[in-house]
Amino acid sequence: MDSLNSTPDDEEKHFYYMGLALLEAKKAMEEDEVPVGAVLVRGNEILAQAHNQTVQKKSPLAHAEMLVLEEASQKLNGWRLLDTVLYVTLEPCSMCAGGLVLARIQRIVFSLPDAKSGACGSVFNLVQEVRLNHRMDVISGIRAEESLYLLQDFFRQKRQKKRLI
Amino acid sequence: MDSLNSTPDDEEKHFYYMGLALLEAKKAMEEDEVPVGAVLVRGNEILAQAHNQTVQKKSPLAHAEMLVLEEASQKLNGWRLLDTVLYVTLEPCSMCAGGLVLARIQRIVFSLPDAKSGACGSVFNLVQEVRLNHRMDVISGIRAEESLYLLQDFFRQKRQKKRLI
Repeated sequence: MDSLNSTPDDEEKHFYYMGLALLEAKKAMEEDEVPVGAVLVRGNEILAQAHNQTVQKKSPLAHAEMLVLEEASQKLNGWRLLDTVLYVTLEPCSMCAGGLVLARIQRIVFSLPDAKSGACGSVFNLVQEVRLNHRMDVISGIRAEESLYLLQDFFRQKRQKKRLI
Repeated sequence: MDSLNSTPDDEEKHFYYMGLALLEAKKAMEEDEVPVGAVLVRGNEILAQAHNQTVQKKSPLAHAEMLVLEEASQKLNGWRLLDTVLYVTLEPCSMCAGGLVLARIQRIVFSLPDAKSGACGSVFNLVQEVRLNHRMDVISGIRAEESLYLLQDFFRQKRQKKRLI
């Protein structure tokens, strides 16, 4: 569903916001965290942006997507994040996909598919599951090479560090 | 899998810890939150206990299970909650089930199945999914009537309040 309802305007928008999500992913990289970034947008307003912080926050829950959901909920003073679009540099896992459904996100735009644990079309598709009470549009593949490069670079560096120990 | 590897000792333990989870659910009820409670245990130590607080915390993520995962991660200073057992009064949703997999929980014991969004056997079974990198034991049905009573009572009260408005 890579071009679902997409106009040239939409494509420009997706490119722009995914760029911000990639900048967040780079921040994660600099902090020695798996480089994944996310931005939550409503209309032309950025509600929240964050990057993966599972190591720093010592929490399995501190994925970029969960952090933006939390920040935006506080900002909007409630848990229903209607009419919002989530941009994220890697396909969300089951936990994050479940969170997106609970928060009633309207659309998710992700960069790189995750064949190991992606829950928005790769391993599962929890965000378009007819048995759950909310479904959303899914757009994938936006700036995927840049996201892949960051992740490959991160894990290459990790392996090199291991070899030096 | 209601009696998986269960000994009489295990059954007594499950009854006891589910009682604590039910007490947490009652606290949620008193706070006008959907009554769900959870307790995380390692050996004989209670690592964390919490109840649903989505309304108070204005967050779609503040399910009882997520709150205990967060609290226990902080306590243990890391995100791998190995050798732990989660007791919870309602079958976890996709988000929480995904969180349990990420946290490497060893076993989940839940009370009442959730036919609408349960992700530990009812709608999905994300916690025993061979395509993910961690799986756990699942035990269900412990003190299910008490959990059901609480939830029914909560929603009955909600409907009555609505009628009075």
